Amino acid sequence: MKKRRVAVLGATGTVGQRFISLLAGHPWFELTALTASDRSAGRRFGDAVHWLLPSDIPDGVGDMRVGPTDGAVDAEICFSALPTEAAGEHEAALAKTGHHVFTNASPHRMDDDVPLLLAEVNFEHVRALEKQRRSRGWSGSIVANGNCTAIHLNLALAPLHRDFGIERAVVTTMQALSGASYPGVASLDALDNVIPYIDDEEEKVIAETNKFLGGWDGTSFVPAGIAMSVHCNRVTVRDGHTETVSLTLRGGPKVDDVKASLRAFSGRPQQLGLPSAPKRPVVVRDEPDRPQPVLDRDVEKGMATTVGRVREDPVLGTKFVLLGHNTIRGAAGASVLNAELLLAEGCV
Amino acid sequence: MKKRRVAVLGATGTVGQRFISLLAGHPWFELTALTASDRSAGRRFGDAVHWLLPSDIPDGVGDMRVGPTDGAVDAEICFSALPTEAAGEHEAALAKTGHHVFTNASPHRMDDDVPLLLAEVNFEHVRALEKQRRSRGWSGSIVANGNCTAIHLNLALAPLHRDFGIERAVVTTMQALSGASYPGVASLDALDNVIPYIDDEEEKVIAETNKFLGGWDGTSFVPAGIAMSVHCNRVTVRDGHTETVSLTLRGGPKVDDVKASLRAFSGRPQQLGLPSAPKRPVVVRDEPDRPQPVLDRDVEKGMATTVGRVREDPVLGTKFVLLGHNTIRGAAGASVLNAELLLAEGCV
Amino acid sequence: MKKRRVAVLGATGTVGQRFISLLAGHPWFELTALTASDRSAGRRFGDAVHWLLPSDIPDGVGDMRVGPTDGAVDAEICFSALPTEAAGEHEAALAKTGHHVFTNASPHRMDDDVPLLLAEVNFEHVRALEKQRRSRGWSGSIVANGNCTAIHLNLALAPLHRDFGIERAVVTTMQALSGASYPGVASLDALDNVIPYIDDEEEKVIAETNKFLGGWDGTSFVPAGIAMSVHCNRVTVRDGHTETVSLTLRGGPKVDDVKASLRAFSGRPQQLGLPSAPKRPVVVRDEPDRPQPVLDRDVEKGMATTVGRVREDPVLGTKFVLLGHNTIRGAAGASVLNAELLLAEGCV
Amino acid sequence: MKKRRVAVLGATGTVGQRFISLLAGHPWFELTALTASDRSAGRRFGDAVHWLLPSDIPDGVGDMRVGPTDGAVDAEICFSALPTEAAGEHEAALAKTGHHVFTNASPHRMDDDVPLLLAEVNFEHVRALEKQRRSRGWSGSIVANGNCTAIHLNLALAPLHRDFGIERAVVTTMQALSGASYPGVASLDALDNVIPYIDDEEEKVIAETNKFLGGWDGTSFVPAGIAMSVHCNRVTVRDGHTETVSLTLRGGPKVDDVKASLRAFSGRPQQLGLPSAPKRPVVVRDEPDRPQPVLDRDVEKGMATTVGRVREDPVLGTKFVLLGHNTIRGAAGASVLNAELLLAEGCV
Repeated sequence: MKKRRVAVLGATGTVGQRFISLLAGHPWFELTALTASDRSAGRRFGDAVHWLLPSDIPDGVGDMRVGPTDGAVDAEICFSALPTEAAGEHEAALAKTGHHVFTNASPHRMDDDVPLLLAEVNFEHVRALEKQRRSRGWSGSIVANGNCTAIHLNLALAPLHRDFGIERAVVTTMQALSGASYPGVASLDALDNVIPYIDDEEEKVIAETNKFLGGWDGTSFVPAGIAMSVHCNRVTVRDGHTETVSLTLRGGPKVDDVKASLRAFSGRPQQLGLPSAPKRPVVVRDEPDRPQPVLDRDVEKGMATTVGRVREDPVLGTKFVLLGHNTIRGAAGASVLNAELLLAEGCV
Repeated sequence: MKKRRVAVLGATGTVGQRFISLLAGHPWFELTALTASDRSAGRRFGDAVHWLLPSDIPDGVGDMRVGPTDGAVDAEICFSALPTEAAGEHEAALAKTGHHVFTNASPHRMDDDVPLLLAEVNFEHVRALEKQRRSRGWSGSIVANGNCTAIHLNLALAPLHRDFGIERAVVTTMQALSGASYPGVASLDALDNVIPYIDDEEEKVIAETNKFLGGWDGTSFVPAGIAMSVHCNRVTVRDGHTETVSLTLRGGPKVDDVKASLRAFSGRPQQLGLPSAPKRPVVVRDEPDRPQPVLDRDVEKGMATTVGRVREDPVLGTKFVLLGHNTIRGAAGASVLNAELLLAEGCV
Repeated sequence: MKKRRVAVLGATGTVGQRFISLLAGHPWFELTALTASDRSAGRRFGDAVHWLLPSDIPDGVGDMRVGPTDGAVDAEICFSALPTEAAGEHEAALAKTGHHVFTNASPHRMDDDVPLLLAEVNFEHVRALEKQRRSRGWSGSIVANGNCTAIHLNLALAPLHRDFGIERAVVTTMQALSGASYPGVASLDALDNVIPYIDDEEEKVIAETNKFLGGWDGTSFVPAGIAMSVHCNRVTVRDGHTETVSLTLRGGPKVDDVKASLRAFSGRPQQLGLPSAPKRPVVVRDEPDRPQPVLDRDVEKGMATTVGRVREDPVLGTKFVLLGHNTIRGAAGASVLNAELLLAEGCV
Repeated sequence: MKKRRVAVLGATGTVGQRFISLLAGHPWFELTALTASDRSAGRRFGDAVHWLLPSDIPDGVGDMRVGPTDGAVDAEICFSALPTEAAGEHEAALAKTGHHVFTNASPHRMDDDVPLLLAEVNFEHVRALEKQRRSRGWSGSIVANGNCTAIHLNLALAPLHRDFGIERAVVTTMQALSGASYPGVASLDALDNVIPYIDDEEEKVIAETNKFLGGWDGTSFVPAGIAMSVHCNRVTVRDGHTETVSLTLRGGPKVDDVKASLRAFSGRPQQLGLPSAPKRPVVVRDEPDRPQPVLDRDVEKGMATTVGRVREDPVLGTKFVLLGHNTIRGAAGASVLNAELLLAEGCV
């Protein structure tokens, strides 16, 4: 198979770097273009980036020339790690001119014709692309993935919603520093501290969960109708969001039934054997003190969500804690998997 | 007033050190005895302790001789920071021989004749001491304070339970390392990590909350009957437990009413002007990103609970985040305040 | 005594905040003006600042109006925490118009008519003020304090240079995050990391040490002529710079002689009993594992340098480790003490 | 080639875990035995270990039964991560009974017939094995590797000593937490802190450096005769020791000559293409702020030393900073490479 030409938009940030890392040596994709803000445009990528991953910049990428955000992009597929304020307009312009944009940015996530795609969970939302192209007159497309917190939450919620139905959920997050990109959180705010606030995050998680777990009725997305409360916190962890979840499942299943549902979860990426698909999208652990960021964030190459401490909740019925890598499955990895899925299904 | 002679039991741990620090220069108490485990007994305190507080060991204390846990104690009042396995037996033995024990240890907290005292909240529980002395034949007494997480939670819940009534609550904690004493959590488990488990902590918080906020009917403690779910986590913070709280209040009060209730809270320690009483036992902040451990744990000398982000909860009705210093108001400071209160009220 | 009217220039940064904290309730000074960059000018200080100290903003200061950096300042004495690029010009303008500027900024430190003053060490440098005023035509003055690393190093070196003479020294620093101000070091660069580089720091430490420990011959500063090598590193510590020092002392004194020299050190601030003077400018500890930032940075209210592990050095003769609070004695506190000294000596 | 049967002694500690991780899938070695202390002996390894590495326990190893430290070991080659107090006796007993022991423990390192082997540096020391076997009557052998700090230091010093000659060196280390094994450093000692002391470490680094860089004259090891001063510090880094080095090289080479010497360094492991050999044992970087633990510790799979900031030293002539992974090349990886080398050379 001839490799598809792909670009990374917003290539110098923490998510952009993850895209580049995940695309290095990818069997289906060939990285042909990078874009970044005006400050970086025109420079060698290796000079423009403050590279933060433990491995070196992949071979050849350091010498690539960074293009401007608003220019033409020499690639069929665009992975977008653009900042919020730049993403809305530029992604639309690229889709209009025939590019297939897989975006990690938030502006289009809740659009009524943009699939908010979680590859194992709601492939049927892809049918909205037809509406998107028709009504917008685009030859390309935009497919969004969710917020990092929402993605891992929904990997765990999806099997439970399908098998039992979720009525309501109370979630508290302990989110990693890399989620705020770079330079992001100042070290004086991070060290020996918890910041109990992340701007606009709680609202996103609620809205996106109801879109992820809802349906597509042929013309519109139908929200899942789950009542949710979310408390978001920033903790001093490099990578890996931890979330405590208390929720009410219809029928009040036993702990063992909940675990069985989570363990049995699998989707199209697993059936199709996509290159970036984790074998187990949800890993369930029985130890009392797991998952932990340093021990579990890299399981399945960072593409899975680990759930632990599944137990009865005296108030809402069921509770557990979950953890996932926020810049891999929670961001860049989710978009790469989405692109693989649409390619395998012949949608792009 | 002649100062009362006081001892610190279990003086070398993190809570024991806080007791010593809070008692240095105390207007009502004079430190006359220290005890610790066999490993330390007989040594100078300054040689036996791994002192962890930023100020030096108070003058004179370093030269005090550490007594054994099971020996006679030259003091009228004993502040106990004994480890769980030693506390039950030794505290009872001291109470039997006339000592007034104010304990931070857990073994006696849920006894049906031991007040679990939070000085602003449930002074009427002190009436259980009569039963305690009579039924046990003690000339002394034991008064317990709660678990560090429960104390700060209950300082915030108490005014809300009194003014509205609490039906149920879902709580997630992010607890400080000093709560696990010393050496406690290994640095390899703490750095860049969250540990989503603290042994037996969730059960304690639920049971103690229902005792704190319940009543004394003349012969027994009557639990408050609040349905609770608690998720406990350890984060990389030196001091200061953060807790997110979602709860249902009777009558569904507005956010402003909830804040007003918290701000108006005051109790006997404030009325009596006790030496260790915070002016405001609950501090309410309006900024979106407070409280934070590094900024708020030392407010009111560590004796208050700070509440922030009071807002509507889509699932349970009301939510907020709270923070308090776990080894001051959450442990040693709470016992010192309890002792001051009983002294001021003529109970010891 | 009527309090002197003082201003803090660059009041919103980490050093500016320390100035405000140290000046609150100061017996000799009354804070009457604050300045900051254009972004903050005109606003209430409480709204303009991201307050980072554990205590609240001192009473009354939050409501003060922030003045612009380049405007008139309603104060006789100015404490400057201006950023480097702004300090040179604005401090000179203020000195010209009669203000006595005590600056923590670097631009004027090495000027040949500006005393680089370390209150216990080189009071005779103040005689350069006469030259400064005459040659520049200023009615006011500028007195500089050193770089945070240099100040603590020189508190330890000064008695050794006086008692023995220092020939050469090799120093490695492990510097705190607050030294980079706010937002300063990104948390992704700080967590689980050491950064072996601080821009222009090594050069400053060498030059300033030779000025601090040198003389004033009536017309010029005479450098001390010490050969030095410095390695500067940033570590994940909030406050407190640690420095390892290997040095050659003339005559090759014994370890006990070195300790005795350090312990005996005292200067004019101690003789005069200045309000901010530490009793012991240098604290010497005998434990094998001290000083440590969390345990020793706040000794003498952060105004002392703690030295430990004094021992023979197989290469250079003598070695030890030292630690001091970088934003108190290493910055704001040093300037406040300098101002107290000049006031007590009738120089301003 | 038939794989050699290998054991890991002291398998549950941080270094033991690294041995297991490095031996998983090794082309030449097959893990057939594990030993640990009495507390763990007889248990499944997966139950006995507190596994701390981000990847899971390698397949099959979790189910292996842990043997006692003092029993027979079913393996030809033994990798020892035994604690100091157990290593001396047990390693000798195994060597006596025909096992080839590659040890990371310190008791035998300075023995006059035990090679302290650094594979690229001093292969000729292996000739001491003849003396060892003959004088001790062993059919097996012991080959030691150095202390983690000494190994990385000597990878950088070796080419410089060979090309120029080292007269003296002053070294300050900033060492990672994993070097103290598990539980090791308490989190309350690590967070927001530097500990300027590691027991017995400075002495080891000096002695081992002089053995590493010295010769074997046919009957004895001849020390290199380098005067050294070392300051050891513990910093809050998971993995990766950073060291600042000031040293005097004969002939006073230029910075570019020093860099060229380091870059050209290569040894038998590279010539032989050993499985664990890094392509570049010393990586030299030109950026002003490298190496850093999070960015550089995993280069060459943790088997190289990274050197940066090579520059003139005003006191000693040359200086730089180096960094290496302390439990890979600094411990387990060094022993595995030593075993590969002796196997390839036909010595075991």
